Amino acid sequence: MPHNTVSFLFDLDGTLVDSVYQHVLAWQQALHAAGIELSVWRIHRRIGMSGGLFTEMLLREVSVAITPELLETLQRHHAEAYARLVPWVRPLPGAKELLAYLSEAGLPWAVATSGRMNSAQFNLQALGIDPARVAVITRDDVAHAKPDPDLFLAAAARLGTDIHSAVIVGDSIWDMLAARRAHGLGVGLLSGGYGQEELARSGAIRVYDDPADLLRHIDEVGGRI
Amino acid sequence: MPHNTVSFLFDLDGTLVDSVYQHVLAWQQALHAAGIELSVWRIHRRIGMSGGLFTEMLLREVSVAITPELLETLQRHHAEAYARLVPWVRPLPGAKELLAYLSEAGLPWAVATSGRMNSAQFNLQALGIDPARVAVITRDDVAHAKPDPDLFLAAAARLGTDIHSAVIVGDSIWDMLAARRAHGLGVGLLSGGYGQEELARSGAIRVYDDPADLLRHIDEVGGRI
Repeated sequence: MPHNTVSFLFDLDGTLVDSVYQHVLAWQQALHAAGIELSVWRIHRRIGMSGGLFTEMLLREVSVAITPELLETLQRHHAEAYARLVPWVRPLPGAKELLAYLSEAGLPWAVATSGRMNSAQFNLQALGIDPARVAVITRDDVAHAKPDPDLFLAAAARLGTDIHSAVIVGDSIWDMLAARRAHGLGVGLLSGGYGQEELARSGAIRVYDDPADLLRHIDEVGGRI
Repeated sequence: MPHNTVSFLFDLDGTLVDSVYQHVLAWQQALHAAGIELSVWRIHRRIGMSGGLFTEMLLREVSVAITPELLETLQRHHAEAYARLVPWVRPLPGAKELLAYLSEAGLPWAVATSGRMNSAQFNLQALGIDPARVAVITRDDVAHAKPDPDLFLAAAARLGTDIHSAVIVGDSIWDMLAARRAHGLGVGLLSGGYGQEELARSGAIRVYDDPADLLRHIDEVGGRI
């Protein structure tokens, strides 16, 4: 693969799959089960971070002591609540078409998610992605998830492409921050519910509505054939 | 009441009560029941508008013909889905304290919501607001809800205060737009999940986190005793 080949590294939740709002309410229910009440928008604004960092930052806001038992309880309750809401999760408009376009164009792409494989697998299935054939980097593969750059660096390494010519597509400011820290090129999508300016301010070189809108404008970010 | 008395006109959902995300998922479920699939963030970005305008704009995005039967079905399914999620709805931090502060300070305040009284009553109850003793303007009282200015104009009229010295507190760009159209002073809260810049761009003179944060900075917007 030539050194300057453009590659595309995708976040999963809110970027390829319409799952952010379900994750947000699942976290509200998990926190409640642990006796912690937190405004829903504050949960939304932390989504996409590494799970550990996410719970640490939330618990710091409510001054609750963090113990391994509490973290384990929260993760378990979140998984249970999310499983109840997952029937409402769909691929985002244009997600499959965008990935198919890149594959046909011979442009390497990968998925890099802060989630673990056991929760990501449902979303990958919905997208028709087989992790045995596609580069998928999860929380299980790296020491630190977003906003650390590790996930995107590992994804570029897996593809054998240079991170400097990687287009890193995400819906959250944590994706954009991790993209900056990895020295890739962040592209924001509004489909996770963040505002346009939040994404631009956190380093996105362009912001589009969703995968369908990115596909319509793919030439702008190096996706021309 | 002197002509230039500062008054406070509050939106309800996302401003005093933490209910936006539940409304968003309830609308997703209602649309799905009518065979319409729409990205969740697009629903979020329309919340706070008049129900009629909201469904019209959403249905325009998916090119579905709008019939009175469809609108009735959507409203019914939304009410059912929201009723299942309403146990997760809480007053926002500082909401009760903010209203108590204004009452004690002798600053007139009212609630002006795009919702109808039959759905607003649960939220009012959670806040300890008795509509028999407090000025509450709902969709039932005006010809057009937000982003038309009617709700806020009716609220100021009910209080007997001038709209020009009314501080209009809301979480959505539709509140801020209606505030501009009413010639009041919009103050944005992040607690409905919009971004700071979206609210500022749509006319907010200040943006705070939530009612607790507004109360801490109440002097900035005319709330000094």
